[in-house]
Amino acid sequence: MSHLVVRGRRINWTLVLVLGYLFYLLLGAMVFQLLEKQAEAQSRDQFQLEKLKFLQNYTCLDKQALEQFVQVILEAWEKGVNPEGNSTNPSNWDFSNSFFFAGTVVTTIGYGNLAPSTVAGQVFCVFYALFGVPLNLAFLNQLGKGLNAHLIPLERWVHKPGRARVVQTLALALFLTAGTLLFLVFPPMIFSYVEGWSYGEGFYFTFITLSTIGFGDYVVGTDPNKHYISMYRSLAAIWIVFGLAWLALVFNLGADLMEKFLQLKWHKPGTAEEA
Amino acid sequence: MSHLVVRGRRINWTLVLVLGYLFYLLLGAMVFQLLEKQAEAQSRDQFQLEKLKFLQNYTCLDKQALEQFVQVILEAWEKGVNPEGNSTNPSNWDFSNSFFFAGTVVTTIGYGNLAPSTVAGQVFCVFYALFGVPLNLAFLNQLGKGLNAHLIPLERWVHKPGRARVVQTLALALFLTAGTLLFLVFPPMIFSYVEGWSYGEGFYFTFITLSTIGFGDYVVGTDPNKHYISMYRSLAAIWIVFGLAWLALVFNLGADLMEKFLQLKWHKPGTAEEA
Ligand SMILES: [K+]
Ligand SMILES: [K+]
Repeated sequence: MSHLVVRGRRINWTLVLVLGYLFYLLLGAMVFQLLEKQAEAQSRDQFQLEKLKFLQNYTCLDKQALEQFVQVILEAWEKGVNPEGNSTNPSNWDFSNSFFFAGTVVTTIGYGNLAPSTVAGQVFCVFYALFGVPLNLAFLNQLGKGLNAHLIPLERWVHKPGRARVVQTLALALFLTAGTLLFLVFPPMIFSYVEGWSYGEGFYFTFITLSTIGFGDYVVGTDPNKHYISMYRSLAAIWIVFGLAWLALVFNLGADLMEKFLQLKWHKPGTAEEA
Repeated sequence: MSHLVVRGRRINWTLVLVLGYLFYLLLGAMVFQLLEKQAEAQSRDQFQLEKLKFLQNYTCLDKQALEQFVQVILEAWEKGVNPEGNSTNPSNWDFSNSFFFAGTVVTTIGYGNLAPSTVAGQVFCVFYALFGVPLNLAFLNQLGKGLNAHLIPLERWVHKPGRARVVQTLALALFLTAGTLLFLVFPPMIFSYVEGWSYGEGFYFTFITLSTIGFGDYVVGTDPNKHYISMYRSLAAIWIVFGLAWLALVFNLGADLMEKFLQLKWHKPGTAEEA
């Protein structure tokens, strides 16, 4: 446990971190609720209106029949069937989509627009992830080391004794800016152009993907009515691999800074005051 | 680059890792396709049949009207509206759900059964994750250190010079077995009981959650027709936090072993043979 004596009172920094974490979650809960609840109510009212209109236009339908049909559609959706159009729709599990799915498993992005629905598929998925996630970590680590090796001359120059702290900060700023442009600012332009999203939506997709959150509300290359050139998917795959390596570095840097800020790393076990 | 001379030929282990990674993705793509494609075709045929049956039973409906209605339902679904029932359904964005959502963002699980649909919500979500993900990492690191501090006496005993390698292996096996039971084998019993899943489905949910893949095809505590006691959600939250810390350790161990196996860590930069 790390402590600091301030005006005669000990502050437990681990406790600060735990309370800060809890507070951050509560804050998020409040803001998300504030931002989303009204829009949800609006969408819901609109949908109920459309349902009513449908019932009025087609008088042979009763409420019960409609609800039953809604349930059939949702079940199909949950089993991964696209309810639109007819049975000549291309399969969700063609090779290219399966490859993309395998990629979302090992990177732990897990969009979930595709997910195994058979028992055999779910069992395989567990074992596939069990070995695939560490393999992906090893791969990203190696990629990071490779990038690092090329950065060493730069780093030596930056960390030369006597070099001003301002230069080190500038180098860090350069690393963050260049990566931000290359992985976060530029790709959404391509995605929004090809997918027909706004730039904001493309950026949201970009960030949610590289952070490996992967809600799956926006996924590139999945519109069955669009013809995607294979170059596009390959570029997206390369972007994901390098972007993940970069953002993981940034997140670790952030976690490091937070721990340093909370003095958790300043006291080594031997020198820390124990309560 | 790390190399090894075998029968006069150099093996580039980085290349082995890259090719292995690619091969693993291709293998996954093939197996997932094999396991899921047929089931998908079956579900799709069944759904088309139900659609036809519906058209035959309600003759005032034509194909176009039905397709239009399918689209309306899907749009509602994508905006996060539950199309079943009427507008008195409880909101998806009440405080408890928003709190759960905030947790899935900072842990990068990102089930996606809830996702912000407003521009303001999406913008906030990006910034929330930008600071929340490192905060969560710092929190998990600190938790790991806390666990480690309690394990140190055990570790000292295990790593005492002269202690047989078999004891070290046994200690590792114990760590893996105890964690597996506590975080992977036992919780699915509770989840499957409360949610009405099979044990296999509960285990699949457990693993997909703790690995932070989070497809969102199975999520606990989301059935609007069930009354969940608040104890259940709290227990699930505690399980996620400790389970994440444990599985992250296991995955890192796995990545370490793979890198060691590929000899990537045996050669230090100074001693490695450069091509
Ligand atoms: K995820
Ligand atoms: K996800």
